Amino acid sequence: MEKKLAVIAVSGGMDSCVTAAIASQNYELAFAHFNYGQRTEKRELKAFNDIADYYNVKHRLIIDFSHFAKIGGSSLTDKNIEVTKADISNKEIPNSYVPFRNANILSACVSWAEVLKAEAIFIGAVYEDASGYPDCRPAFYEAFEKMADLGTKPETKIKIVTPIINLSKAEIVKKGIELNAPLNLTWSCYQNEDEACGVCDSCAFRLRGFQQAGIEDPIPYKVKPNYK
Amino acid sequence: MEKKLAVIAVSGGMDSCVTAAIASQNYELAFAHFNYGQRTEKRELKAFNDIADYYNVKHRLIIDFSHFAKIGGSSLTDKNIEVTKADISNKEIPNSYVPFRNANILSACVSWAEVLKAEAIFIGAVYEDASGYPDCRPAFYEAFEKMADLGTKPETKIKIVTPIINLSKAEIVKKGIELNAPLNLTWSCYQNEDEACGVCDSCAFRLRGFQQAGIEDPIPYKVKPNYK
Repeated sequence: MEKKLAVIAVSGGMDSCVTAAIASQNYELAFAHFNYGQRTEKRELKAFNDIADYYNVKHRLIIDFSHFAKIGGSSLTDKNIEVTKADISNKEIPNSYVPFRNANILSACVSWAEVLKAEAIFIGAVYEDASGYPDCRPAFYEAFEKMADLGTKPETKIKIVTPIINLSKAEIVKKGIELNAPLNLTWSCYQNEDEACGVCDSCAFRLRGFQQAGIEDPIPYKVKPNYK
Repeated sequence: MEKKLAVIAVSGGMDSCVTAAIASQNYELAFAHFNYGQRTEKRELKAFNDIADYYNVKHRLIIDFSHFAKIGGSSLTDKNIEVTKADISNKEIPNSYVPFRNANILSACVSWAEVLKAEAIFIGAVYEDASGYPDCRPAFYEAFEKMADLGTKPETKIKIVTPIINLSKAEIVKKGIELNAPLNLTWSCYQNEDEACGVCDSCAFRLRGFQQAGIEDPIPYKVKPNYK
């Protein structure tokens, strides 16, 4: 039987890679990627294409969200704001938060999914064991699915699936290994494109996940602090 | 007292112009415009800037949503799909529907509003007396506002305001005249950039509104059928 199609939002990071691995168990994959003027745009796009090649993905959509660089308000898209060193224990929203980014990403995914007649959208948001961005909350995704159902054609029914939202980073690493996800092809660092910095929010949560799982992270790091 | 800021989604058409006129009574205006590969992109952008000049708008954001042309599925963004002649009595969703467009537009407006600390977003969606696009339903906007509240910072509270959603096109024309909205600067046609075609969905609903209001539409038309 032919598999149904699902759109996966793939940044090229570990979380979206493991999300794609999970989706591939039940769906044919369509990969969407977003350039939004983030510092590591080129490196992320390479990771996206490498992961898409690994999964033999035919449907690929690369979207330029140039408005985030114009809008600013985040250290990821405004070079005048420094990417702060991670403070994992701090529960405030870090300055790497890109305002309402995931709603923009999901809205474009819904547009594409409606045309492709895809049945689901997968996004690798992580809430508990991550930076606490508001657009990573489970309740946000539930509200988004309802809104999307009201804003699309009556025959369009699209599930918003967040399969790793309640996993710890260590559990995500283990799930990736279990499913043969190509973690060596992924890129998570917010700061650098050659060697991961090891100290930004994204590196810190990723490294702690590998350290807690007792597995060596296969990508190169400039420094590897102990986050356990 | 200084007025609070509101972001207005301004296509350059009559509905968004009257919406801006309404918002200007209580807010300082920030205008957002979207190019999405629609046929009349240049003419709409000119109308946007003309209306912004009229209202002395300082905050202007022009966003290129190139993904809609890639995604297709609409006669507005895919030149291989013909813009059908309006059938005002038909209640099916016309092929000018751009999949989930208004959610993409609103998501970008929320991102901007969060950085600007704007209090509201105004959008000139019209439901009853229009084409029946699903992303023009009142329930969609209510659901969107809830979703946006969950997906932004705790201190961010943004109202989604649709001041003309339940007005007829004739009432919108009269409201525009009452508020001195510059209807002569607007552009609504989906098909042409020099003379409005008079027969696409958008022209048909607009012309019927002027005809029912007993007012002459100030913009040039190729043909002006009687829609009353």
